[in-house]
Amino acid sequence: MENKGPFINELPQSGEITLLAIVLEKQLRPKRSGGVFLALRFADRSGELDGKVWENPETVSRAFERDDIVKVRGTVEVYNEKPQFIVSRIRRCDPKEYNATDFYPSSARDPEEMFGELHGFVAIVGLAPLRELLVNIVSDPAIGAALKFTPAAMKIHHAFRGGLIEHVLSLCNLSVALCAHYPRLNRDLLIAGAILHDLGKVETLAPSGVRFAYTIRGQLIEHVTLGLEILERHSSRMSEFSIELKTVLQHLIVSHHGDLDKGALRRPMLPEAFALSLMDLLDARMEQVFRLIDSTPCGDEFTPYIPSLERQLFRGFGVAQTEAPAISEVERTGGVVA
Amino acid sequence: MENKGPFINELPQSGEITLLAIVLEKQLRPKRSGGVFLALRFADRSGELDGKVWENPETVSRAFERDDIVKVRGTVEVYNEKPQFIVSRIRRCDPKEYNATDFYPSSARDPEEMFGELHGFVAIVGLAPLRELLVNIVSDPAIGAALKFTPAAMKIHHAFRGGLIEHVLSLCNLSVALCAHYPRLNRDLLIAGAILHDLGKVETLAPSGVRFAYTIRGQLIEHVTLGLEILERHSSRMSEFSIELKTVLQHLIVSHHGDLDKGALRRPMLPEAFALSLMDLLDARMEQVFRLIDSTPCGDEFTPYIPSLERQLFRGFGVAQTEAPAISEVERTGGVVA
Amino acid sequence: MENKGPFINELPQSGEITLLAIVLEKQLRPKRSGGVFLALRFADRSGELDGKVWENPETVSRAFERDDIVKVRGTVEVYNEKPQFIVSRIRRCDPKEYNATDFYPSSARDPEEMFGELHGFVAIVGLAPLRELLVNIVSDPAIGAALKFTPAAMKIHHAFRGGLIEHVLSLCNLSVALCAHYPRLNRDLLIAGAILHDLGKVETLAPSGVRFAYTIRGQLIEHVTLGLEILERHSSRMSEFSIELKTVLQHLIVSHHGDLDKGALRRPMLPEAFALSLMDLLDARMEQVFRLIDSTPCGDEFTPYIPSLERQLFRGFGVAQTEAPAISEVERTGGVVA
Amino acid sequence: MENKGPFINELPQSGEITLLAIVLEKQLRPKRSGGVFLALRFADRSGELDGKVWENPETVSRAFERDDIVKVRGTVEVYNEKPQFIVSRIRRCDPKEYNATDFYPSSARDPEEMFGELHGFVAIVGLAPLRELLVNIVSDPAIGAALKFTPAAMKIHHAFRGGLIEHVLSLCNLSVALCAHYPRLNRDLLIAGAILHDLGKVETLAPSGVRFAYTIRGQLIEHVTLGLEILERHSSRMSEFSIELKTVLQHLIVSHHGDLDKGALRRPMLPEAFALSLMDLLDARMEQVFRLIDSTPCGDEFTPYIPSLERQLFRGFGVAQTEAPAISEVERTGGVVA
Amino acid sequence: MENKGPFINELPQSGEITLLAIVLEKQLRPKRSGGVFLALRFADRSGELDGKVWENPETVSRAFERDDIVKVRGTVEVYNEKPQFIVSRIRRCDPKEYNATDFYPSSARDPEEMFGELHGFVAIVGLAPLRELLVNIVSDPAIGAALKFTPAAMKIHHAFRGGLIEHVLSLCNLSVALCAHYPRLNRDLLIAGAILHDLGKVETLAPSGVRFAYTIRGQLIEHVTLGLEILERHSSRMSEFSIELKTVLQHLIVSHHGDLDKGALRRPMLPEAFALSLMDLLDARMEQVFRLIDSTPCGDEFTPYIPSLERQLFRGFGVAQTEAPAISEVERTGGVVA
Amino acid sequence: MENKGPFINELPQSGEITLLAIVLEKQLRPKRSGGVFLALRFADRSGELDGKVWENPETVSRAFERDDIVKVRGTVEVYNEKPQFIVSRIRRCDPKEYNATDFYPSSARDPEEMFGELHGFVAIVGLAPLRELLVNIVSDPAIGAALKFTPAAMKIHHAFRGGLIEHVLSLCNLSVALCAHYPRLNRDLLIAGAILHDLGKVETLAPSGVRFAYTIRGQLIEHVTLGLEILERHSSRMSEFSIELKTVLQHLIVSHHGDLDKGALRRPMLPEAFALSLMDLLDARMEQVFRLIDSTPCGDEFTPYIPSLERQLFRGFGVAQTEAPAISEVERTGGVVA
Repeated sequence: MENKGPFINELPQSGEITLLAIVLEKQLRPKRSGGVFLALRFADRSGELDGKVWENPETVSRAFERDDIVKVRGTVEVYNEKPQFIVSRIRRCDPKEYNATDFYPSSARDPEEMFGELHGFVAIVGLAPLRELLVNIVSDPAIGAALKFTPAAMKIHHAFRGGLIEHVLSLCNLSVALCAHYPRLNRDLLIAGAILHDLGKVETLAPSGVRFAYTIRGQLIEHVTLGLEILERHSSRMSEFSIELKTVLQHLIVSHHGDLDKGALRRPMLPEAFALSLMDLLDARMEQVFRLIDSTPCGDEFTPYIPSLERQLFRGFGVAQTEAPAISEVERTGGVVA
Repeated sequence: MENKGPFINELPQSGEITLLAIVLEKQLRPKRSGGVFLALRFADRSGELDGKVWENPETVSRAFERDDIVKVRGTVEVYNEKPQFIVSRIRRCDPKEYNATDFYPSSARDPEEMFGELHGFVAIVGLAPLRELLVNIVSDPAIGAALKFTPAAMKIHHAFRGGLIEHVLSLCNLSVALCAHYPRLNRDLLIAGAILHDLGKVETLAPSGVRFAYTIRGQLIEHVTLGLEILERHSSRMSEFSIELKTVLQHLIVSHHGDLDKGALRRPMLPEAFALSLMDLLDARMEQVFRLIDSTPCGDEFTPYIPSLERQLFRGFGVAQTEAPAISEVERTGGVVA
Repeated sequence: MENKGPFINELPQSGEITLLAIVLEKQLRPKRSGGVFLALRFADRSGELDGKVWENPETVSRAFERDDIVKVRGTVEVYNEKPQFIVSRIRRCDPKEYNATDFYPSSARDPEEMFGELHGFVAIVGLAPLRELLVNIVSDPAIGAALKFTPAAMKIHHAFRGGLIEHVLSLCNLSVALCAHYPRLNRDLLIAGAILHDLGKVETLAPSGVRFAYTIRGQLIEHVTLGLEILERHSSRMSEFSIELKTVLQHLIVSHHGDLDKGALRRPMLPEAFALSLMDLLDARMEQVFRLIDSTPCGDEFTPYIPSLERQLFRGFGVAQTEAPAISEVERTGGVVA
Repeated sequence: MENKGPFINELPQSGEITLLAIVLEKQLRPKRSGGVFLALRFADRSGELDGKVWENPETVSRAFERDDIVKVRGTVEVYNEKPQFIVSRIRRCDPKEYNATDFYPSSARDPEEMFGELHGFVAIVGLAPLRELLVNIVSDPAIGAALKFTPAAMKIHHAFRGGLIEHVLSLCNLSVALCAHYPRLNRDLLIAGAILHDLGKVETLAPSGVRFAYTIRGQLIEHVTLGLEILERHSSRMSEFSIELKTVLQHLIVSHHGDLDKGALRRPMLPEAFALSLMDLLDARMEQVFRLIDSTPCGDEFTPYIPSLERQLFRGFGVAQTEAPAISEVERTGGVVA
Repeated sequence: MENKGPFINELPQSGEITLLAIVLEKQLRPKRSGGVFLALRFADRSGELDGKVWENPETVSRAFERDDIVKVRGTVEVYNEKPQFIVSRIRRCDPKEYNATDFYPSSARDPEEMFGELHGFVAIVGLAPLRELLVNIVSDPAIGAALKFTPAAMKIHHAFRGGLIEHVLSLCNLSVALCAHYPRLNRDLLIAGAILHDLGKVETLAPSGVRFAYTIRGQLIEHVTLGLEILERHSSRMSEFSIELKTVLQHLIVSHHGDLDKGALRRPMLPEAFALSLMDLLDARMEQVFRLIDSTPCGDEFTPYIPSLERQLFRGFGVAQTEAPAISEVERTGGVVA
Repeated sequence: MENKGPFINELPQSGEITLLAIVLEKQLRPKRSGGVFLALRFADRSGELDGKVWENPETVSRAFERDDIVKVRGTVEVYNEKPQFIVSRIRRCDPKEYNATDFYPSSARDPEEMFGELHGFVAIVGLAPLRELLVNIVSDPAIGAALKFTPAAMKIHHAFRGGLIEHVLSLCNLSVALCAHYPRLNRDLLIAGAILHDLGKVETLAPSGVRFAYTIRGQLIEHVTLGLEILERHSSRMSEFSIELKTVLQHLIVSHHGDLDKGALRRPMLPEAFALSLMDLLDARMEQVFRLIDSTPCGDEFTPYIPSLERQLFRGFGVAQTEAPAISEVERTGGVVA
């Protein structure tokens, strides 16, 4: 096993560096002064980086392919205000030389552990046919395998391996908390909604190299249709699954986006559908907001403008100052201001 | 068989009248001067009419029930600018005394003939598995029976018995015409879209007395979800129905409303999905517009304001005048103005 | 103390009835046959009811005034499908004859107990100046007195005496639950936001007889402006309240409606502002949805159309049926469907 | 006549190439190393291409001007992922050396033939004054000349020479088909609407070199106003053109965009105005969709994102699988999937 | 000449009253107890009033027709909280017995005086051809006659006889003031825009009895199209009216609603078009707001909810406190609050 | 004092040039051929300009800092169609060598003179407590100092030093003119609204080098909240400032954006609030439109597309025709077309 070396988001700005990275793009390009150079794009789970090979580009180019993991040596230069890596040596790595999880962003939690926790939530569903349906679905090998690594979205929230199941488990936990607070909510339905509402995403996004991409089915009919299909397939296999219960589950799936212009076919009409829809929005926002705050360079008080949210986020007073006494009090109590 | 008598939309405004009608509402109400009267609401396929019984209301009230067909005699009075029928005699009719079709609005075409025409369109579908799927669906007894009488909508367009199949056939005919005009359009897909796009309505609207009402499933998950369910059920029974073809059919169903805020889950992404969506809108508008124009009292140049269209419709110059020579020329050429 | 008699929402439909009610409207009107009658409108905390006095209306009319509590005897008649009360006797009551809380809708919880619970949440705020500010505000006699009875809104949600504090306490409890689930959220800020976000409503709505009405200030500048004013008044009295903390509290107030077109001046930019905004929406919806479901006549599967939500709500399968075995299983597990 | 050489959209990526092209831009620019080079932009009807002259740029620059057709020799290099043409020789061509139609996108149909077909549709209009008006308009030399080459739009649909008349003829044909399907539609009015609705575009877009550009009048008052002006000018020259008929034609023009926010002054209020508006949208979409599908590199399943449609288009299953048997079946049945 | 008697908006609520009024509606209706009564609707320029004739309704009904001015005697009764007039005597008046202007709402200013003032504004236009065009237009007998009495709108603002010219003059005056404040604005264009922007309304609204109603042309093509038609007609009669100037005037007309969804074909693109559009909105709002405030019963602090403005208007503090010294201070300083 | 030299927007395109400028950015960057160069960005009040130092970049770089004013000599080259300044000499200037106002865009008017004019408007306010409040506010040293230089906005309108007070004075003048035209408007309130509506901007935007930037408070709570805070602070210091008057001033502040989706908390409900809101929009548009027209290269008939206005602006016929006689006629009559 080779040493991974520094991650791309913490690359030193000077000196020779050696690291492992995946090759996202590889292209020979003409130099203005004649001849060609080799333009590369590297990535690991922490970010991406442009690279250039000026010496023997044709020979170097034959030594590895797109999507290969390589060991690469060179220096960082700034070009048009962006860093690029000037490569002096590069070679292909064997699978046994690296740890694949270094090269794509993933949930911090272990997939199997999350999958076990999901089974635990299914087990506390009290209504027998509903519990049986959920057991069948999460035990379906095709679904289970995909659930362990699919992201919850391409970009907006939980956009990393295991993001979908992490989001589902967060909603299951919130379901339990909400039912404690609003005892009239039906916990069985809320857990079922948490598990089923985005389940079609296991067929909407599929691995594409170290990343995920929309499948054709995902593009053409989206996760709501695909989730309905999974529900239909599994409920039709159960001999006496009641049409009423299926209808309520279908309603939870088609209404979870809350409003027609956001992709719902029907607005929520049951208390549990309202709760699911708002809980889903809250959990997506919390993950998105904390991740955006974390990925902003420290020292900046605001994140860059976030088009999908139509705003910048505030990282808290004091992030750019260190000496202010108000700030240290803030830090004592562990939060943004207080 | 009793004589139906005049239809409600052509009731004479004076003199004694005898007619058959269905009883939609029946209620004893207190008179201000003490005692009670019997308030009724009658209907036939041409319209509705309030009625009142001033004499012996309790006795009369026991002689028939809501949803009965009755033979009723009385005179028309105008009250708050609306006609009401002052009943002098009323009695329940036996089923053999009336023709049921006199009491609900229906397609002008014979249901069996339309059903036969639908089979004809299925038969010209060239792609074998698609044709087989459509044969299975329209031959499904539950679907076929409902198709023969379900309306296409509660109110907006084709809101009468047989309205759905009439609309489907109109789209099948338009599909053939459009494929002749735009030869790159795939006729098989367009006919399949015409048949499947609204098919979920057979479970969305159900007979309720002489009218139709939303089913609970219709309210909670709407015809798009129900149409997907029918497609899934029938395609999963065919041993080798390709996932690609099913996906395209699902896309036609979920995109036929054209835009997310109008109830589509995805916008049309295939030429046939664009054509289906616009053709569907055109056919709905044509039926709606001509029906609204026809139901406006002659002599009025404009229909009343139509909330769903946010406008009044114009019935053509000359409808209120008779002597204008320009008008008679208009009439010679058979149209609105010309 | 007189017996209240039946509440208006459970009035028997036949026989003589005696009850206590408040007089909302009182007007002498001409009869078509000459002379006048007395038109009344009664209310208690359960609903409202029209009434009429046909005998000696002028004399009766002089015996009491609008907003008086009266003891009234009579019978229910149905007129234009709405019940009205035909009065045979009516007299004014002394305050000692009735329990004032019978005449307006109120929180089911005791105001003083809720107020105590609010002080408890203030006490767990860790940041000293923030805790001090909140203590000062809830201890401000004008605010405290109003808090104990103001509704959270005129109509949409928590529209009853004590509704505001009930909503605030629900949000304080949710704040604690959310901070347990998302430990990076600052609990002090979330509790402060729960208490301050709607606080301007204590000056927006004011008692008007047994009901509440918008104040002129409420109409002209609304609760966000009034809440900012309260915050400014109290924070300016504290010698060293930091401008940073005040700004964050101002941001929580002006962003809690989430979006500009819903009345926010700024979109949420802090994690706590996102959480407050969505938690506020969730709590309002839960109260509204369960209340609407409860106020629908049992036997109806759907509530009437709710304009503010643009939908009907579903009360659950089985509400109209009693014998279905699926249903009894539903009831065993205590929820809508399950 | 010189050989055109390869079209820009099918330029070989290697080797010396000679082709004819029009010069869209020509500019001397400083090199970083001192001195200047000549930056060019070439086009033909198939696309555009950047070019550079490194040798003797000042001399070369004097040999031709912008908008000249040139014969040019050189090689293709890729720069910033876009091809550029490194010129070794270039010279101006005489008009007799090239075929002008090679240099701008045009309708595939002959303008005179289309113009004849348009006269044919005018001739079948039955109402004499309407037919006379249309004859006068299409025979107006200024209008006729422009009609033969104006595009229907700058970008969205039918954006090529002759696009307007091609679109108008397509609508005339659709009018005939729709009137056969919906016999109550007035064919005379529908044909008149097809011809007049976009006619103002003959003054909205004007030739600008080999392309078209918005005229100042087009920018300031748009084609609806200009179409009304043409109608007013010609109808006022006819001694007895009825005000009613003019009003209906004006209504067809001002309502054809369907909704106010899409540029209509009034929503359609006549059956023919509804049909015109939807037929116009359908024809525009069909042209746009097939053109976008055709201009996507083969092998791609989806077109790039289309901002005006807010979506990608799907080109059909199998386009990425060369020689797939599924595809040949597709081709046998003539369409996307089937 | 008969005495007009009290105006409808100041009718005493008791005692016998005699007044002149116009008959808007007249209908014999059945009484519940048998026989008929005569239902009437009266109006004068101050308002409208329902009326009933219980004695000899058939005979009375033959004595006058709709739209006649009648002298009527009777008493006011309140029915369903609205006043109605119980008629004891009624007779038709001769034109010489009344002053027609008592029966419709009119501008407070003399039409001829306003028309003279309009000519004055035309005269200060400096650019000769523009001045000549405007002279021709306002001197066109058909336009001038209509201008003197047409309202500016059916309901929203200046909805009274002479409202259009009053609005136009107000804009001419504002034009002069704005050009003094922003000297780069072209006063000639602004005055021309003030006169032309709504001029099509002279054909959009036409007298219908004592009221105005939409014409068919107004409904189908609206005042923007009709204003363009007037401009085209008059500019085409001038031998050398420049196309550039006509285009700018057309732009002012088609852009004056400011935005597409408010009925503009183009957004304002010239400084004068921006100024015209905002000045037009300001003047409409000022007239509307003061009229709504004036027509609210004194004592009410807020007007009723105004749907077109989506709000209530505030009439000022103190309006509900009679004789409050604060009020007289208000009046001394001439305003709402001060 | 050094000679400023040419302003950046009028730099000669050839020859050696010497000018004074401020350094906005300064960065050493690697050359592709090895070594580094110094990348600079210069600005003065007329615009910005990129610069490069190829010789001795490290040494040169140590001679000055960002935000220094420098004297610089070099030549202009065009690179990627944008000019860049190739520096041959550069040195830091002492404050006494330059006039600071040359380096940022400023109101053409003297700040002290404008401040005096503002005091003049305050002095004509008739209502004593309102006048006193305004005197206190504009005499508050913190406010007065900021008022003299704050812009009215970052970009849209009056985006230069002194822009806020220039905008406020323009509105005060318009207030006087509007009150003359609409005498029922309360001039005191309108002047108070003109002064207070945007006053929070003195804390929203703060100097950042030679430019302005959003403050954190500006980002988090915006100028409406900050304006309310200023009003609260000053009115609470006056012993008897009436709550009614404060409420009206608060209403003017929170309603001046006109509609909720544009940032108003309440829609205007007083005539003065309507007038303020529209007058504010008009003045912003006039400044914006004339500035955009002025900054478009002469010869262009249209400005570039303006995203905030969603349109291009028209600069008038003839701007592209030099010395055209039509133009001189335009200039004689002082406007765009006439």
